[in-house]
Amino acid sequence: MAIFDEELRALKERVLKLGSMVETAIHDSVRSLVERDSDLAREVIRKDHQINALDVEIDEECTRLIALRQPKARDLRFITTAMKITTDLERIGDLAENVAERAIELNEESQLKPYIDIPRMAEIAQEMVRDSLDAFVKGYTKMPYEIIKRDDEVDKLNVQVFNELLFYMIQDPNTISRAARISYVSKYLERIADHATNIAEMVIYMCKGKMIRHTEIQGNE
Amino acid sequence: MAIFDEELRALKERVLKLGSMVETAIHDSVRSLVERDSDLAREVIRKDHQINALDVEIDEECTRLIALRQPKARDLRFITTAMKITTDLERIGDLAENVAERAIELNEESQLKPYIDIPRMAEIAQEMVRDSLDAFVKGYTKMPYEIIKRDDEVDKLNVQVFNELLFYMIQDPNTISRAARISYVSKYLERIADHATNIAEMVIYMCKGKMIRHTEIQGNE
Repeated sequence: MAIFDEELRALKERVLKLGSMVETAIHDSVRSLVERDSDLAREVIRKDHQINALDVEIDEECTRLIALRQPKARDLRFITTAMKITTDLERIGDLAENVAERAIELNEESQLKPYIDIPRMAEIAQEMVRDSLDAFVKGYTKMPYEIIKRDDEVDKLNVQVFNELLFYMIQDPNTISRAARISYVSKYLERIADHATNIAEMVIYMCKGKMIRHTEIQGNE
Repeated sequence: MAIFDEELRALKERVLKLGSMVETAIHDSVRSLVERDSDLAREVIRKDHQINALDVEIDEECTRLIALRQPKARDLRFITTAMKITTDLERIGDLAENVAERAIELNEESQLKPYIDIPRMAEIAQEMVRDSLDAFVKGYTKMPYEIIKRDDEVDKLNVQVFNELLFYMIQDPNTISRAARISYVSKYLERIADHATNIAEMVIYMCKGKMIRHTEIQGNE
């Protein structure tokens, strides 16, 4: 089984690689907004194809491992969780691409306001992705609960951003299109944090098994 | 392999059962808003636990089938797709629950405007869920492309709803909290359609195999 152990190790590394690509996408998409760097935004959009390709590769590798090695119990659950996690990572990549698209549009107009909460949201979301993958590869069971809690912080920031933008829109209807775009960016980041939360939930499920998902997590809120 | 065929058939039925529960949740959550029926909204929220439980059950059954029957190629891909699809269905259930939560809040205040686009969005989203699951169990390859196209319609309605609500908010700041809640409902429905789109993409991938996902679908847009 030494070959299979090596294959599982390689699978973990690929998932972490995908995670790090996705983290970079989040970071760069928000940086392209804050620093008004549309070239960087276009790079994020271009690189999304690599994220998609790696997601498909990992999926194929998981299917191959299941078919060839016929893993049982823990290993099987690890592989099926990897398949699900990469789907979430790929969707986070799409959302970072959406942030970059809005950044390009916003960079074409004068800046409505300095960005403070949005980089903070991106930072938390990025940490959540990193920690949830860390918990996945190391099999941590406590850490995911901490990650799920941080999702509330991102939700609160999203509401705060939205309320602030409403204030701008009401004061001056000329700000509406820009404010709406910024509110979309905030919403994308909030959804990225949701996906990281989903990953954390799946890691808890993987570690603890049956019937923990949904129920116990709800009880912990 | 007659037993395995029977198990696969039972799995299909359970996925369809979950789909039909989720469809009902979408329908009822929007009806609870339109008909200002908070009791119905509370029923949607209560029933979400059943959706979560069935999601976990299907996941367990898929893992059991993989471990016990060691399926290959087509059957294995069908089972792993079922695992992913149910994750999307469960999240649609959560979003319907969110619609019901906003409905309860909105039903406590006077009605801002008649709901026209929102029931339309719910109807399309519901059809998308139904058709994508139909394609999944029957192995259709053309239909998913049609489903993906309908997502654009929902996106457009969401933008239309948002613009209309902005108009209300600008005219009269007293409408802001209600308008914001309605815009959330619209956004939840838009995300439900996104999940249905994801299911359709996974069905195409399941049927056609390697490297179709993301790339071909993007080319078809």
